[in-house]
Amino acid sequence: MKNIKINQAEGISERDKERTSVTVLGLGPMGQSIARTFLKNGHPTTVWNRTAEKAKNLVKQGAVLAGSITDAVQASPLIVICVLDYDAVHAILKPVEDDLNGRTLVNLTADSPKRARETAIWASEHGIDYLDGAIMIPSLGNPSALILYSGTEEAFKTYHTTLASLGGTADYLGSDPGRAAAYDVSLLDLFWTSMIGYIHALAVAKTENIAAKDIVGYAQRMVNIFPGVPEIMSLIADEVDTGHYPGDESNIISAKVGIDHIIHTAQSNGIDVSVLSSTRAIAQKAIDDGQGTDGFTRLVEVLLHSKNH
Amino acid sequence: MKNIKINQAEGISERDKERTSVTVLGLGPMGQSIARTFLKNGHPTTVWNRTAEKAKNLVKQGAVLAGSITDAVQASPLIVICVLDYDAVHAILKPVEDDLNGRTLVNLTADSPKRARETAIWASEHGIDYLDGAIMIPSLGNPSALILYSGTEEAFKTYHTTLASLGGTADYLGSDPGRAAAYDVSLLDLFWTSMIGYIHALAVAKTENIAAKDIVGYAQRMVNIFPGVPEIMSLIADEVDTGHYPGDESNIISAKVGIDHIIHTAQSNGIDVSVLSSTRAIAQKAIDDGQGTDGFTRLVEVLLHSKNH
Repeated sequence: MKNIKINQAEGISERDKERTSVTVLGLGPMGQSIARTFLKNGHPTTVWNRTAEKAKNLVKQGAVLAGSITDAVQASPLIVICVLDYDAVHAILKPVEDDLNGRTLVNLTADSPKRARETAIWASEHGIDYLDGAIMIPSLGNPSALILYSGTEEAFKTYHTTLASLGGTADYLGSDPGRAAAYDVSLLDLFWTSMIGYIHALAVAKTENIAAKDIVGYAQRMVNIFPGVPEIMSLIADEVDTGHYPGDESNIISAKVGIDHIIHTAQSNGIDVSVLSSTRAIAQKAIDDGQGTDGFTRLVEVLLHSKNH
Repeated sequence: MKNIKINQAEGISERDKERTSVTVLGLGPMGQSIARTFLKNGHPTTVWNRTAEKAKNLVKQGAVLAGSITDAVQASPLIVICVLDYDAVHAILKPVEDDLNGRTLVNLTADSPKRARETAIWASEHGIDYLDGAIMIPSLGNPSALILYSGTEEAFKTYHTTLASLGGTADYLGSDPGRAAAYDVSLLDLFWTSMIGYIHALAVAKTENIAAKDIVGYAQRMVNIFPGVPEIMSLIADEVDTGHYPGDESNIISAKVGIDHIIHTAQSNGIDVSVLSSTRAIAQKAIDDGQGTDGFTRLVEVLLHSKNH
């Protein structure tokens, strides 16, 4: 433990000079990328994975392969874990929870805010400084990379420089350990729902014998009116934050008519309409509540108020 | 009919010089915008609407208000209609179908490709040249505006210049009258599904006490990895067109894990998860079929093959 105490007493710039030792647990594609980036930035890096073969390339690049999970944890004051989900996190760390005492654990595994908070409680019970992180843009080591952190502020301050070597931006969102995960799931929601919208649109086009590239050619020309551009994003956010949903240019009723045309086409061409039917039902609920002439963004309230039913 | 025959004998440039007379049926916000743009471009414009008050401003700008739908149709060789849906189109035009004989009808009302094709058959049976149009970017009269047309090629050629005055781009997609509507519903599918994804993401964020502007701040920084940008659109289209769905960087299994985290969060925060549950079920189907290690774009095949079940 001596090494850790000395490190904690030093300032960030001192730590930076001597390059903090790091242990990376889990060597899936993302874990490998994390370890590789620490190595490139001069950090002595210990790695561990359930199946040791995955460490081969990293060892060539200078990583130390730990013989056991206990050795891995004891090798560094800073432990970074990135595995499939929190079940895997707990399965790996439970046997070494006493060895983790006094160290800092950075969990870059993705899961829900609730599970991040539960893991923080477990960490606190075992004297582990805990940071929960969400890798938003995974171009690790490049200026474009973006990782969000929340949890123990002191741990973030102590290791900020080390963590910053993983990406262009390492933002600390506050002491609620679930906050990074909350941003993560919200942004992933936008991502995956847009993706299924894309894929479904291309499926509808295919049933009409239109090539994906032809639809996309027009989508690219329409990009400025689509919700994917920063200007439209800000407009939408503003309506939601102020609770003011003007329906002058397009409202929920006209949106529902448009959605019906898509559903009719997809149905008569025999393809799945489940995502759109759900969207339609949400719009219909607003119309039934007399909000049909409001803008589409009003549906955020329908979603939120489904809480009370 | 004499006037029409003379016009048809002339070339486009001659027609352009004398400014084709146009009749606009339906004066909702879009119909008014259409009539206003024709007037601005010097076209003698006759207007008609079920409730005549809506013509007031247009008459001030030089439009002629027809006393009846028959007068409206007889006033011009080119009739443009833009109303709520095709039921309204048929209710308005059925009583004057004989008056429409020999004229060109441009239907800018949005509906499904199937109904566009049915309307084209009705038009053909009554000697009406028919173009079905879809207003994709409604900034009429500006270079950014985009309207797609399909149907009678001769009609498009004859009135191309007149129609082009409505928007920066007036593209003809071919003689299948359903083609413009097919592009329209596909692009709207992408639009509305992205929109509900946006709204739902902001609802999830709100239940975690995150303001819309804060989520959007990060979404804007992540815009280059989201499917809303031209580069990502082209990548997706390419995978779909070639039927090659690499899952090296992210696959259907990892996508489903991510979707589960969102569903768990939304559920434990008590908000509607219907859209994501549908998305999850489509991903699950691919996993059950042994395609889980392919990329997410593979889901286009799941959607298309749901045809056969």
